[in-house]
Amino acid sequence: MRAALMYGAGDVRMEDVPDPKIQQPTDALVRVLRACICGSDLWPYASMEPSEQGERMGHEFLGVVEETGSDLSTLRRGDVVIAPFVWSDNTCEFCREGLHTSCLHGGMWAMNGIDGGQGEALRVPQAEGTLVKVPVGEDSALLPSLLTLSDVLCTGHHCAVTAGVGPRTTVVVIGDGAVGLSAVLSARRLGAERIILMGRHKGRTDLGRDFGASDVVPERDEEGIERVRELTGGHGAHAVLECVGTLPALRTSLGVVRPGGVVSRVGAPQYPEVPMGFPEFMNNITLTGGVAPARAYIEELLPDVLEGRVEPGRVFDRTVGLDGVPDGYRAMADREALKVLVQP
Amino acid sequence: MRAALMYGAGDVRMEDVPDPKIQQPTDALVRVLRACICGSDLWPYASMEPSEQGERMGHEFLGVVEETGSDLSTLRRGDVVIAPFVWSDNTCEFCREGLHTSCLHGGMWAMNGIDGGQGEALRVPQAEGTLVKVPVGEDSALLPSLLTLSDVLCTGHHCAVTAGVGPRTTVVVIGDGAVGLSAVLSARRLGAERIILMGRHKGRTDLGRDFGASDVVPERDEEGIERVRELTGGHGAHAVLECVGTLPALRTSLGVVRPGGVVSRVGAPQYPEVPMGFPEFMNNITLTGGVAPARAYIEELLPDVLEGRVEPGRVFDRTVGLDGVPDGYRAMADREALKVLVQP
Repeated sequence: MRAALMYGAGDVRMEDVPDPKIQQPTDALVRVLRACICGSDLWPYASMEPSEQGERMGHEFLGVVEETGSDLSTLRRGDVVIAPFVWSDNTCEFCREGLHTSCLHGGMWAMNGIDGGQGEALRVPQAEGTLVKVPVGEDSALLPSLLTLSDVLCTGHHCAVTAGVGPRTTVVVIGDGAVGLSAVLSARRLGAERIILMGRHKGRTDLGRDFGASDVVPERDEEGIERVRELTGGHGAHAVLECVGTLPALRTSLGVVRPGGVVSRVGAPQYPEVPMGFPEFMNNITLTGGVAPARAYIEELLPDVLEGRVEPGRVFDRTVGLDGVPDGYRAMADREALKVLVQP
Repeated sequence: MRAALMYGAGDVRMEDVPDPKIQQPTDALVRVLRACICGSDLWPYASMEPSEQGERMGHEFLGVVEETGSDLSTLRRGDVVIAPFVWSDNTCEFCREGLHTSCLHGGMWAMNGIDGGQGEALRVPQAEGTLVKVPVGEDSALLPSLLTLSDVLCTGHHCAVTAGVGPRTTVVVIGDGAVGLSAVLSARRLGAERIILMGRHKGRTDLGRDFGASDVVPERDEEGIERVRELTGGHGAHAVLECVGTLPALRTSLGVVRPGGVVSRVGAPQYPEVPMGFPEFMNNITLTGGVAPARAYIEELLPDVLEGRVEPGRVFDRTVGLDGVPDGYRAMADREALKVLVQP
């Protein structure tokens, strides 16, 4: 079968790889219906050291169960399933606390011999803990929106939830990528009073307005901080959803958060230290967030997607087949595309 | 009247200063019944640049109202009152949110022309917002415990509350100073299942056990982290209460916190940056806490103190008169005394 491999910065290739096989009784084989390219895939695409054997790619996908290991009882061949971007047993003490990303028996896709989502099919470990069955057909028009439950919608939701967003919350969202826009949608869904989106790409911020942003601030850094402070009576926002992962984005977050407020980060941090010393202490600023335990949120968010109350799939603005994956990376890296859907 | 002034590192003097006078209609004059020396007073005591005019000291006191400004209606001469360690109007938007430390019309004691608590008397700005009347006489045996509501008990409580301590929480408290011990007491009061106190001064950790610590870990740094991990099934604690303020204490906190857990800091940070990069992100670690809005907690904690269910005043292990204040600083800096009570 064919799958994407990354061999170094800017070097993604579609190649033939061995077909996946059931290895453990808790495995399932899943044929991919839709996958996508993640903003976090762009970090290695920008900086990966050359590799001779290449690395499998992709951690967001939904598909059809093709074969089940002998321990599985609730999944059947033909089920359409969403895979969260971390696999997990859904039974360990961390999973029971809703922190599936710290599952004692789970792990990441496309690492340590586990298949990646950008390909024709995968072996899914801990399949009954990992996969969530959805009541749609293989040709459902909802597949793009359902695919966002694999990562990007759940990540935006995690950001909003850990930041304590609710009615009467003023929210700033940093970043107009797919995660930032999903965070806007999530903050609106949780009832935020006002949502200020910091981003400068008009097509993206327009979608942000559709998703619920009440204001857009295109300025960055000190100028952007000043503008947000003007919009918030001088004090800043209760909740800042940091959806980029860079140090400037984090500094902006700390600049626009209100005393007693929360900065939640879901962009993988590209920095080792956080500038939270005495001033942030005196202002009682909280830093929270982290990698989103998508598995914990799928059931909760699913009805709104199935019933069309939210349309998170609108973040996909380009669709490619498997052969188009390398160009999909390029398009996202060049900011030609917001988020690329892969339809094998 | 007499008051304490600090002229530089290690140089505290009792001097004659002008008697306080009502300046604003919202002021009250308070005669000090009890004051104390704070762990945070030891930072300037260790490092203050020499000053010709000296700085007034002290931010924890309770006393008797001697005179009231014309705007005051609920305070009367003779009332025994507790002063939280930040003064505030108790009506602005931040005070209404319980964040009196960010009061728009408040400030710190012993700064910018405001009197300090280590003296015979003070002018109290925003007196009705700041002071909390307590139903005891000037000679009550409860005065030491009531005085802890000025800072140290409320600070420990803030640490435990912001860390989300409740039943079924495993807690680690870093630091066996008066704040750390107050945090132990607060965590126990909030129902924590298990409280591990990291400290190495036996007299203090014994008091910590009396306050509710279930385990004491005297080891520090890597060795201490290892010991706490052994005690917590390898995963660390849900809530870490960082009551020191140094970078090693913060590093230890991050070393003993469980994935999905919270580090709350109430020791004034002696560092500009926090080592919370990718690993803490992947573990969904939250950093919270900050300077405690004591005023927000006094009414809630008062009944337990008045009715003797908690005895936070046991943190005072030495009492001095005003002339003994300079030696009180020395004793605390030399770790001869845990916390020094001042009885003018």
